[in-house]
Amino acid sequence: MAHISLPEGLPGIVGPMKQYPATAAHLNGLAQELLRGPSSLTPGERETIATFVSSRNDCWFCMSTHRAATRHLLESEGQSPDMVDEVRRDLSTAHVSEKMRALLAIAGQVQKGGKSVREDDVALARAAGADDKAIHDTILIAAAFCMFNRYVDGLATWAPENEEDFVETGARLAGQGYINSIPRD
Amino acid sequence: MAHISLPEGLPGIVGPMKQYPATAAHLNGLAQELLRGPSSLTPGERETIATFVSSRNDCWFCMSTHRAATRHLLESEGQSPDMVDEVRRDLSTAHVSEKMRALLAIAGQVQKGGKSVREDDVALARAAGADDKAIHDTILIAAAFCMFNRYVDGLATWAPENEEDFVETGARLAGQGYINSIPRD
Repeated sequence: MAHISLPEGLPGIVGPMKQYPATAAHLNGLAQELLRGPSSLTPGERETIATFVSSRNDCWFCMSTHRAATRHLLESEGQSPDMVDEVRRDLSTAHVSEKMRALLAIAGQVQKGGKSVREDDVALARAAGADDKAIHDTILIAAAFCMFNRYVDGLATWAPENEEDFVETGARLAGQGYINSIPRD
Repeated sequence: MAHISLPEGLPGIVGPMKQYPATAAHLNGLAQELLRGPSSLTPGERETIATFVSSRNDCWFCMSTHRAATRHLLESEGQSPDMVDEVRRDLSTAHVSEKMRALLAIAGQVQKGGKSVREDDVALARAAGADDKAIHDTILIAAAFCMFNRYVDGLATWAPENEEDFVETGARLAGQGYINSIPRD
């Protein structure tokens, strides 16, 4: 059971967002800008970073939701949807561009703590073609999911147990994004 | 030097917020709602939580900025401004209400990770008078500062070295909040 009273049947972050809409508006606005707004990274690449960090934080709801969205987006971008699972399993051997490998390594450092990001990590990403905006977005996406993951698990919210239960939500988020993502009454 | 190109002379989060205004609007909106919006906790109490978490994350810029704002707010609320320093030094002996002690303990668990918050932590806070909104706000403030701290330190932003350099900013944030907190050209 969640640590506070939340609307029944709404999984993960959806319950607290429905119950506390004043903060939810800013959280969804941030997710929309970060994951769908202008960037030198595609939405699929940015959702991969979100999924990777949620996996490192062991947040089942966020990992499963963004994994499902990522698979839809990568496919529509002509990339392999399995990329998101490969990087979670082993970043060093995953079939992924050197730019994404370096950016995901930065995201992994941010997950540990801001000071863990080293000049060398950033230099590797730049050498592989990452620009300032890509490095900025990677760091803020990783930081933001350290927030979202803690919000979801810190409140002990409920989530479905099976990966298949996230496919429909993933398709919706891939197509429609995060604005108006909370169900109305 | 910061990991990406940022406007000169703007400390901590102010540089990336000025450079990347589209995400800054949502970050400032979230801070304003969380720290100044309606809550069963006073702004001084909520800024104490922000300072406490920033201290645990060893983020000098956020800790110093929010400490300065907290001291102004606590004083204006008729509380001792030293409370914010006492809880950072030793939460168990700090002169603070049992409600705040229990909420800060929850914030400390969120800093470690969302799953670290236990039913017992929440039960203690409830027994000391914390309502659902106080528990929600504590968890989301702690989670949000795990983001802000990582954004500031993950980009290796510059910050002044002396506590006194934060007093003016603290007074401004205490009085005016976070909307329009980024300087215009």
